[in-house]
Amino acid sequence: MHTAIVTPATFFSNGPVVLDEAESRHLRTVLRVKPGDHVRLLDGAGSGCEAAISSVDRKTVICELRGAVEKFPRPPVSITLFQCVAKRSRMDWLVEKAAELGVARIVPVLSARTVMRTDDEAKSDRWNRIAESALRQSGGGWLTVVEIPVKWEAALAQMRNFGHPLLVGALAWNAKPLGEVLLALRPAVPRAVAWVIGPEGDFTPEELEQVLSMQDAVPVSLGKQVLRVETASLYGISATRAVLG
Amino acid sequence: MHTAIVTPATFFSNGPVVLDEAESRHLRTVLRVKPGDHVRLLDGAGSGCEAAISSVDRKTVICELRGAVEKFPRPPVSITLFQCVAKRSRMDWLVEKAAELGVARIVPVLSARTVMRTDDEAKSDRWNRIAESALRQSGGGWLTVVEIPVKWEAALAQMRNFGHPLLVGALAWNAKPLGEVLLALRPAVPRAVAWVIGPEGDFTPEELEQVLSMQDAVPVSLGKQVLRVETASLYGISATRAVLG
Repeated sequence: MHTAIVTPATFFSNGPVVLDEAESRHLRTVLRVKPGDHVRLLDGAGSGCEAAISSVDRKTVICELRGAVEKFPRPPVSITLFQCVAKRSRMDWLVEKAAELGVARIVPVLSARTVMRTDDEAKSDRWNRIAESALRQSGGGWLTVVEIPVKWEAALAQMRNFGHPLLVGALAWNAKPLGEVLLALRPAVPRAVAWVIGPEGDFTPEELEQVLSMQDAVPVSLGKQVLRVETASLYGISATRAVLG
Repeated sequence: MHTAIVTPATFFSNGPVVLDEAESRHLRTVLRVKPGDHVRLLDGAGSGCEAAISSVDRKTVICELRGAVEKFPRPPVSITLFQCVAKRSRMDWLVEKAAELGVARIVPVLSARTVMRTDDEAKSDRWNRIAESALRQSGGGWLTVVEIPVKWEAALAQMRNFGHPLLVGALAWNAKPLGEVLLALRPAVPRAVAWVIGPEGDFTPEELEQVLSMQDAVPVSLGKQVLRVETASLYGISATRAVLG
């Protein structure tokens, strides 16, 4: 069954559901749905419901809810990824994979050595579309939100206020292996963790010191080999989900 | 420093090292090395050594070892990936990431629902080049070997003789969550494990039964969401490396 993404308000009303323009176009032109077809509606905020399409026209697809609203449990640990923006196709791939693996939030960060130098919103739009597409594909209940890229100082402020473990992929002298760090958290799984991953050229020493001096920061060794940025993130996220999720 | 891949025999001889044509061309035309430059030679079988380039000509680069041969420890657990071949760009990505994450061996499998239908060697050549390039990038000591694609029956025979846990990504009723499976193996880490991952359309019920009836097979649940093939593999490999590696 095809999937469409709707706003969370959808499941609180009783009337017909009017899908937004992008979803409607996708259903009509790519998936070629017809009135009478069933689709699965997901709000990306923990709810989903089957619906029957009642009309398809050039700009809108309208459908009616069928059956009960399904609730998806929240993942046991909410993962935020502070990710210094990687080069285009690698960042796209990373967003797709992070979304499939259930990361709650991605904060694209512009650090000193990050190649992308703009905090323009268009980039986030693109990444959010990739995340939506991953949700449609996976049929999961929770949408990954990709924020607008932030400059390093603003990212630091967010990390400082995060209030849960900040796992920092770092070659610091006191970094512990990934598995050890996660197993130490397992007896009392935190509600949230964040991963902080540097750019292709790594953090500057000053940046690393700024992050690691935070109370909740945990330097994590991802192994002796040099992993590409997106591999490092995916490795950290996968292991976090397996051990804590 | 740039990296070149050499045969394991290289570090047992005393004379000058003649790099093969592909490595020579890459160093000359892409990396523009000159006599006197230093490169790092890796044999992908646990040894590496620095070398100084003595001559660069159209077909060959010649260098001389400098200093001691460095030994890379073997990863604590050797990971083999039986991977039903994914669509082109996704399979390429998967090979790159698996190589970066230190998978020892990839066996591309042609199952009933695998899209690729040919066991031609050219494909493996391409994947092995990707693995070599991942080794150069990561500076690791061990090269991932990608075998020639095998038909399902031949893959089954290899799995039957594997002699270590076969972790099967499967939606079987008795599948245990990934984290639980890996933590159960941790008290006595096996020397090797294999992952068995189906194609985009999943295994057929018969195939799944054939694998799961093997003595060493462990059905593993990768979560309720439907992961893309390459995401499933990387998720399993990452967690294995973090928890057992």
